[in-house]
Amino acid sequence: VAVGILDVDLCGPSIPHMLGVGRPDVHQCDSGWVPVYADAQKGLALMSIGFLLEDPDEAVVWRGPKKTAMIAQFVSDVAWGELDVLLVDTPPGTSDEHLAVLENLKKHRVDGAVLVTTPQAVSTGDVRREITFCKKTGVRILGIIENMSGFVCPHCSECSNIFSKGGGEELAKLTGSTFLGAVPLDPLLSGAMEEGADFIRSFPDSASFGAISTISRALLCDLEGA
Amino acid sequence: VAVGILDVDLCGPSIPHMLGVGRPDVHQCDSGWVPVYADAQKGLALMSIGFLLEDPDEAVVWRGPKKTAMIAQFVSDVAWGELDVLLVDTPPGTSDEHLAVLENLKKHRVDGAVLVTTPQAVSTGDVRREITFCKKTGVRILGIIENMSGFVCPHCSECSNIFSKGGGEELAKLTGSTFLGAVPLDPLLSGAMEEGADFIRSFPDSASFGAISTISRALLCDLEGA
Repeated sequence: VAVGILDVDLCGPSIPHMLGVGRPDVHQCDSGWVPVYADAQKGLALMSIGFLLEDPDEAVVWRGPKKTAMIAQFVSDVAWGELDVLLVDTPPGTSDEHLAVLENLKKHRVDGAVLVTTPQAVSTGDVRREITFCKKTGVRILGIIENMSGFVCPHCSECSNIFSKGGGEELAKLTGSTFLGAVPLDPLLSGAMEEGADFIRSFPDSASFGAISTISRALLCDLEGA
Repeated sequence: VAVGILDVDLCGPSIPHMLGVGRPDVHQCDSGWVPVYADAQKGLALMSIGFLLEDPDEAVVWRGPKKTAMIAQFVSDVAWGELDVLLVDTPPGTSDEHLAVLENLKKHRVDGAVLVTTPQAVSTGDVRREITFCKKTGVRILGIIENMSGFVCPHCSECSNIFSKGGGEELAKLTGSTFLGAVPLDPLLSGAMEEGADFIRSFPDSASFGAISTISRALLCDLEGA
């Protein structure tokens, strides 16, 4: 499956670091910016404002209109090539970035939104507002993922629900959405993201990888049916 | 100490829930909106867009200019009364909300910014950009707090650094900022926020309360000296 990831968190672009691609120069070709390909995951193309800043500590002090223009460029001017899936990672909220993505993807087919929450009420509350946004803007909800869902101590194997429990599944029920699954807190996963390492190849037996792969398969299945 | 909290996370107002004040109606007096007072903590006044929405699930689908206007109103039209400290809680980033707060507080004295990170590189990277923003806009950095800093298993007392280790302190050193302290992951603290309970009175002996109270005292000391 050829996947593209478009990172529209313009003030906090973290995906380049998590995928271990660093800060390569972005090249231009006739059909636009050439996305950056992650070494570890073949076929995974990435575009992020992180590649366009000269200094990694540079603050993107942009108001909404400038953000909107940048996102329009990301959607129209990146030479993604043939993709099966384009995943757009947005910051939290229901503001300029979200509106800009939808407006600029109008010409294309938007399959829907995957909403990620933690189990806590303050987080499900934010996602409830995102659901309202999706309904208002006519975006189908592909499902809800509960992240940071329990922590199994690697020393004693006891589980602690550090950020409460079950909020994602409950939210899915309440709103008639699909519950895609729960991803536990996992130092292996956050360690791999910290190092930009290939989590899938390093920890195929971890609980968090199991959860993520079940969720991905369900999503792909849904999209292929669409 | 009379403290006011202004929640300018317009798309994700979570402070009313965390302080257990629910969604009371906000009243008007001659000098503006009357803030909501938290029951448990005497003298703690709060203003948030959460109080102004009819439906808690309502999405605030606002672009930058509307956000900026709302924040201007929050700064000028709330009857805070006599305050020793006004704490403004912003969403992450360096965009409309942050610029609006600074512009509207120009007439007042802005003592500085408290920056909160997790230990991870993706989070310290975001905070490095916030530091650049503070330098550009002339805001003094009061210090850096490391949140989600290690988890002591309540079953076996072993510590797991779920989100890496030491990133906040290292960032403070690298940028010449004060390191205010590290707050561990604590189910007691997140549970109290989930219920809107009074954490200070319920768990005065917890490690996270110890860390928070040391940080608060250092900050107050700094502000009183200013």
